[in-house]
Amino acid sequence: MQDFTPRNPDFARVVADSFARQSMMETLGARLVSVAPGHVAIESTMPAHVRQQQGLAHAGLAFSIGDSAAGFSGLTLLPPAQEIVTSEMKIHLLAPGAGERMLAEGRVLRAGKRQLVCEAEVWALAGPRKTLIAKLIGTMVPVNLQEE
Amino acid sequence: MQDFTPRNPDFARVVADSFARQSMMETLGARLVSVAPGHVAIESTMPAHVRQQQGLAHAGLAFSIGDSAAGFSGLTLLPPAQEIVTSEMKIHLLAPGAGERMLAEGRVLRAGKRQLVCEAEVWALAGPRKTLIAKLIGTMVPVNLQEE
Amino acid sequence: MQDFTPRNPDFARVVADSFARQSMMETLGARLVSVAPGHVAIESTMPAHVRQQQGLAHAGLAFSIGDSAAGFSGLTLLPPAQEIVTSEMKIHLLAPGAGERMLAEGRVLRAGKRQLVCEAEVWALAGPRKTLIAKLIGTMVPVNLQEE
Amino acid sequence: MQDFTPRNPDFARVVADSFARQSMMETLGARLVSVAPGHVAIESTMPAHVRQQQGLAHAGLAFSIGDSAAGFSGLTLLPPAQEIVTSEMKIHLLAPGAGERMLAEGRVLRAGKRQLVCEAEVWALAGPRKTLIAKLIGTMVPVNLQEE
Repeated sequence: MQDFTPRNPDFARVVADSFARQSMMETLGARLVSVAPGHVAIESTMPAHVRQQQGLAHAGLAFSIGDSAAGFSGLTLLPPAQEIVTSEMKIHLLAPGAGERMLAEGRVLRAGKRQLVCEAEVWALAGPRKTLIAKLIGTMVPVNLQEE
Repeated sequence: MQDFTPRNPDFARVVADSFARQSMMETLGARLVSVAPGHVAIESTMPAHVRQQQGLAHAGLAFSIGDSAAGFSGLTLLPPAQEIVTSEMKIHLLAPGAGERMLAEGRVLRAGKRQLVCEAEVWALAGPRKTLIAKLIGTMVPVNLQEE
Repeated sequence: MQDFTPRNPDFARVVADSFARQSMMETLGARLVSVAPGHVAIESTMPAHVRQQQGLAHAGLAFSIGDSAAGFSGLTLLPPAQEIVTSEMKIHLLAPGAGERMLAEGRVLRAGKRQLVCEAEVWALAGPRKTLIAKLIGTMVPVNLQEE
Repeated sequence: MQDFTPRNPDFARVVADSFARQSMMETLGARLVSVAPGHVAIESTMPAHVRQQQGLAHAGLAFSIGDSAAGFSGLTLLPPAQEIVTSEMKIHLLAPGAGERMLAEGRVLRAGKRQLVCEAEVWALAGPRKTLIAKLIGTMVPVNLQEE
């Protein structure tokens, strides 16, 4: 893991608060698994109401938890009065979204003042097996809370 | 609208059936608005359970209906025994996901035998106003139904 | 063509000067074809020294003139003391780079204060035929000249 | 390094031959540095004729050697009678293209029958310093030599 120095000592609480305010995360059966400077992991139970036509997880699930893990990994590095928003994101879907749970591991690749480049890997978990099913990379933008 | 010739006269029913089997679409408050060869539109009511931390629509909503509109636009051009899956997709988020409804308009840019390149534009609708909030472009792959 | 209001009345000269300082453009046999607010076109003669292994134009040629057309379309909208740099760019290669000339048409999709989203289409020209061979979409960032 | 089993024992010669037939690589001052199953590295001398308006390396140089390193890493895994072409590619430009040489390290992320997902990292080298200046990820497609 690359080493990052957070500018807000309270970064873990900031991430937990922001996560808790996202109704989408509850809808997707998602919870925060770990929060460290520049690194955040999110896991989903893959509930039955987020499937596509073949009964597998919808691409939107992998995107949503991958994008969130990437964005929250960036949020850990921002100063206190800033939020983060996704500017653009690319996802490669590498294997079917089958399994018992889905794990997204996000990390910061480059933290600039005006832009952060973040990545995420998404894994399907089934018993002891862990399969890489998606990879995301994209651009995040810090937003001053008073600007919004 | 570019003109495409469908290889399955029943393409509209194929899209409607596939859409109906996606529990994710119901979860997102989404319905099919229009289906034509190479063009599909999907609209969401933006329900309260798909929000991010600021109360706006989560990026995952724009992605999910945009990706689906793009993919279904490709499905309209496939022969009878094929399904379509997203291989990779990029989304640019251009404006906040605020409004009463969200409309995704997907279209085929290039229909190859092994890959289709599809685009989608996502609009926020509020009364008479229509704001472009996201643009997607990505690669779709036809899959033989017996292969799956 | 979408209507944009330039913030620098001298935008055409700024683009021409910047283009002239790029040795890469001369290497690629490229010249400016048109410059309007939010829209720039560049054409290449596809010289023999920019080929790939099958004798067609290298993907790097379509990328380079497409990225430049997109970036210069953004530059037309910036205030006097700013330059523009590519933050990220995606290219879809849709057809082989064959023909007599290659034309890239760039345009601004969204002009924000801190980021511009720009697109480009790249065409192969052979006599009267014009074939879409690539599509690009990406993020550009304005940079203050004194910052660099 | 992930372990890949090549399907053509002669993969290194195939890559060297294909590289040698690309006039673009010579134009960019590029040479093959290493070729292993699923991994290829290319280095450029950053010649004066591939610059942008500020005298730094043009984004097209990082793209061209990154895309080529990614594509050749995929080519190492193909059976004898297949070539590889880029279908789509995204590049993030992370730092200015300054330095003495530019090194692109490509690798295969997923090798499917009809598509390969490949990545590349591009580094600026200046004496002992090695700076990550670009990251690419994209889709490659195998093409039968007789198909072309």
